[in-house]
Amino acid sequence: MAHYVAVDWGTTSFRLWLIGDEGAILGESRSREGMTTARETGFTSVLDKHLADVGAPADAPVIMCGMVGAKQGWVEAGYIDVPAKLSDISGKAVSVPGQTRDIRILPGLAQRDVNAADVMRGEETQLLGCAESMKNSDCLIAMPGTHSKWVRVVRHEVLGFSTFMTGELFDVISRQSILQHAVKDAAGFDGGHPAFLAALHTSYKEPELATNRLFSIRARGLLFSLSPTDAEATLSGMMIGLELAGALKQAPKDTPVILVASGKLRGLYEAAFHRLGVTSTTIDADDAVRRGLSQAARDIWQQDEGSRA
Amino acid sequence: MAHYVAVDWGTTSFRLWLIGDEGAILGESRSREGMTTARETGFTSVLDKHLADVGAPADAPVIMCGMVGAKQGWVEAGYIDVPAKLSDISGKAVSVPGQTRDIRILPGLAQRDVNAADVMRGEETQLLGCAESMKNSDCLIAMPGTHSKWVRVVRHEVLGFSTFMTGELFDVISRQSILQHAVKDAAGFDGGHPAFLAALHTSYKEPELATNRLFSIRARGLLFSLSPTDAEATLSGMMIGLELAGALKQAPKDTPVILVASGKLRGLYEAAFHRLGVTSTTIDADDAVRRGLSQAARDIWQQDEGSRA
Repeated sequence: MAHYVAVDWGTTSFRLWLIGDEGAILGESRSREGMTTARETGFTSVLDKHLADVGAPADAPVIMCGMVGAKQGWVEAGYIDVPAKLSDISGKAVSVPGQTRDIRILPGLAQRDVNAADVMRGEETQLLGCAESMKNSDCLIAMPGTHSKWVRVVRHEVLGFSTFMTGELFDVISRQSILQHAVKDAAGFDGGHPAFLAALHTSYKEPELATNRLFSIRARGLLFSLSPTDAEATLSGMMIGLELAGALKQAPKDTPVILVASGKLRGLYEAAFHRLGVTSTTIDADDAVRRGLSQAARDIWQQDEGSRA
Repeated sequence: MAHYVAVDWGTTSFRLWLIGDEGAILGESRSREGMTTARETGFTSVLDKHLADVGAPADAPVIMCGMVGAKQGWVEAGYIDVPAKLSDISGKAVSVPGQTRDIRILPGLAQRDVNAADVMRGEETQLLGCAESMKNSDCLIAMPGTHSKWVRVVRHEVLGFSTFMTGELFDVISRQSILQHAVKDAAGFDGGHPAFLAALHTSYKEPELATNRLFSIRARGLLFSLSPTDAEATLSGMMIGLELAGALKQAPKDTPVILVASGKLRGLYEAAFHRLGVTSTTIDADDAVRRGLSQAARDIWQQDEGSRA
């Protein structure tokens, strides 16, 4: 099919790819102009600037996902209720009115169970991009981040999902709580750090002591001169261990896990799975969203091209 | 014994009582001049002002507890390591040098176990004030707050304790996280609120889903128009339920609980214990600290008077 543009537009980030024949990446443009910024400067002007950056043809259609489709976004794209087939997502894309080119925004997913209410917006497109790796089996997709998503998929149908506030809690605790003093000037750590792995395991085994273990980081600073780096690695291990204690119980034991992650989080979760004996394969998060957008573009516009032929 | 002055001097609060014969309260003075303020304006001037307010005799000695004895306080009063007898606390009080009257600060308690490191400062005096209610038995003392303390006491000996960051996490989550929008303009709730009790029970039963349940407050706002008051009651119930899941496992089942609390927290924890079938008795937190300070004053100065007689 002809050129199209794929956009992942989140709360605080913007990523655009110009895609050519056979899915070739012809150009890429990124910035911090997420939904929050674009609400002030205007969605059209942000998009136009990035389209110009990559030299997108004037008639190339645009497929988008993420918070751009939220109620506070550009055009509300709603939610599809789970259980839902991955192949349903593209068909529910919403057009942005009054544009010179065809621009569509993919919907999110909603779990309308009052005892397990949940929503996602953006991650459904990553799921679509992982479809090939899922084969036809039962699997658990882990998408760590500010709000980590764990999704149960059986034969390409999303049965349900759970969001864990891991990344955001790590941030507010390390910046706003009494632990800010313990982690100040931490030098960085990775998934092999002994304090990370020890805290991960303890928290996974005893999730009920989560808020007590948090305070013990402070007490270890006072009584045992815990270093800021060890304190930060411990805090990270505790938060991820608590997430895994809950998330891994959402599917039968030994359900294969597909980790969708990149950068530092990828390393931390791979190390965590290894420590806990969880079998997993990893898909790069950037690749997943781009592939998901491409799949949606093919679903939407190849069909149009077919009907015009 | 003669008049003495009892002071509970915390991070953000100051409370002083002038005590006369038989423990009669002759005067009381309170302010927000906690350690943080006093470090700037001077500990002596804050104390002198409150002593003048209640008309304390020039020779009345002063017994103090709380963060005034921390490293960043007036004079560091150190920690007594647990296990420790409650009767050991008074003997380790530290004198403030260079004063015209006898001023002493009580030490805190430390648990120097690297896998369960913990500290308290101020609550040890509340424990001392609860000694009569403990009789000679095995009990669990619950002191909810910013940093909730749970203390195992057997025959007036503190075997160990655990701090849970419940109150502080409730604050940072409701003010700094994405949930701030869900709880904005909440109208207030008490321990009988159905959303509080439901969340308490769920969180107590499934502590491993704590950070997932937190996000579900956000999702219920989007999908089910959860009210700000129900959202705040749910958040509170979740945080207290998580604390109780961990804290109640620290002692054998059916160990009697003594709740040391006042105000709103007293009502929430009493309702929580009732909901979970935990037997508890309550001691007012203000009474406990004043009684503990009085006990320490008697231990320190009646002995002096006796030796002078």
